Amino acid sequence: MAKPAAPGLHIRRFTAGEWTESPDAVVTEEPLQLLLDGEPLAVVMRTPGADVELALGLLFAEGIIRSLGDVRGMRISAEADETESRIEVEPALVESNQVDVLLAGRPRRKPERSMLASSACGVCGTQMIEDLRRDLASLPAGPVFDPALLPGLVDKLRSGQGVFDRTGGLHAAGLFDPGGELIALREDVGRHNAVDKVVGRLLLDTRLPASNMQLVVSGRAGYEIVQKSIGAGIPLMAAVGAPSSLAVAMAREFNQTLVGFLRGDRFNVYSSPDRLTKN
Amino acid sequence: MAKPAAPGLHIRRFTAGEWTESPDAVVTEEPLQLLLDGEPLAVVMRTPGADVELALGLLFAEGIIRSLGDVRGMRISAEADETESRIEVEPALVESNQVDVLLAGRPRRKPERSMLASSACGVCGTQMIEDLRRDLASLPAGPVFDPALLPGLVDKLRSGQGVFDRTGGLHAAGLFDPGGELIALREDVGRHNAVDKVVGRLLLDTRLPASNMQLVVSGRAGYEIVQKSIGAGIPLMAAVGAPSSLAVAMAREFNQTLVGFLRGDRFNVYSSPDRLTKN
Repeated sequence: MAKPAAPGLHIRRFTAGEWTESPDAVVTEEPLQLLLDGEPLAVVMRTPGADVELALGLLFAEGIIRSLGDVRGMRISAEADETESRIEVEPALVESNQVDVLLAGRPRRKPERSMLASSACGVCGTQMIEDLRRDLASLPAGPVFDPALLPGLVDKLRSGQGVFDRTGGLHAAGLFDPGGELIALREDVGRHNAVDKVVGRLLLDTRLPASNMQLVVSGRAGYEIVQKSIGAGIPLMAAVGAPSSLAVAMAREFNQTLVGFLRGDRFNVYSSPDRLTKN
Repeated sequence: MAKPAAPGLHIRRFTAGEWTESPDAVVTEEPLQLLLDGEPLAVVMRTPGADVELALGLLFAEGIIRSLGDVRGMRISAEADETESRIEVEPALVESNQVDVLLAGRPRRKPERSMLASSACGVCGTQMIEDLRRDLASLPAGPVFDPALLPGLVDKLRSGQGVFDRTGGLHAAGLFDPGGELIALREDVGRHNAVDKVVGRLLLDTRLPASNMQLVVSGRAGYEIVQKSIGAGIPLMAAVGAPSSLAVAMAREFNQTLVGFLRGDRFNVYSSPDRLTKN
């Protein structure tokens, strides 16, 4: 995994009334221009690194691609010299500020006028979920996960994240198998992006739907993250932070097990608790 | 301020290996359809409440309006009965899922094809900041704020927030005068929205630019929040969490004092430290 850059800078610190000066590092946030067959599609603010995963994960979440077979190739423009190079989809962890995804055929679904601010999604959460029914399928029953393993996954996420994050500003998404083994860990200044990167990785590895995986995210569970993980077929989504009402409604509608406030030795289950065995 | 709804629901809790069941509350996240002169502009995911402030703050941040004089009126559609009622801009804290802002004249700036995913902003942070130079002015020098007051503002934010937030899922933005008096506190599931609501409030009160105010936010400081607060003329922005590289670059470019990691009796200053007097 590419290491997110953390540019050094000099800052002033205030501690209990005393000033000091010292170097510091902050998390990198840079715009990525995403193109589809040469046409500008969206600008995504993200932490550079794993941009190809991010682009593929985002296109998958939007329903524009459904598998790697829908992608003919990708063009990456490096910021430094603006040159373009046609690359194969693998190895894909190139850093740049422009990614052009070339489709093998027509988009599986017409891109929204804006991928991030769709006006087609209706004007209330209930209608939004009904609209999503056209694109998302309910997750099948099973598998069963061990609830006693869940708290430990946060520790694994944090220790994996600690290598990269010296800034306190990165969100993480970690995918684990039923035994609690880490499959993929991605970080980003945006928590949606971290999930898109993980899903993009699964797409590259042709491991979708991830029907026996559990996803742990470092932040809160908003509806978008739940939607993205349901789209990837992930049956259990656990967040360190709080879920929103729409996230809970969506998880209940599509039979995803949604866990929130996963901290220390405790957590809450908001939907489909049957996948977590009672002791 | 309208109280964000927190729908009750029944959940299962896991604590040190033991399961219990109990009612719980989660933060409401619902889409708001924003229209401009009857034309769909964007869908914003937000916590209902203060929607008019949110709409005005967002249009101000996008440069579409510059003052209350640019707004002829607003139409609100209530979710319940879909009826429309022409309302004056005040009182403005109506809850609904559709807000139509009627302009007095032409937009001050042409709305982007998508307000949230502009493809006009360039492909790197440096270019993005250069583009913003056309729309944003550097903040003038001064005023001076007392650094010893800053830690206490987080406590005021939290205690003000505690009244509303029983869910652990709400971000807060609080505006304080130089003496640390709370001027406005707004909450939302999205931290950008909380800032937009505060700026919308200032717009309604014709208090922009807020050139002697300090803004405290509960989360991290990404570039968008810094951009929005600079646009509102706020000279000092303090975040409980970490800033991003682009946020720091933008604050330095536009002479805003950016404070991060405001926790306990300490904080870091990333830009324009002269506004915080040394003891």
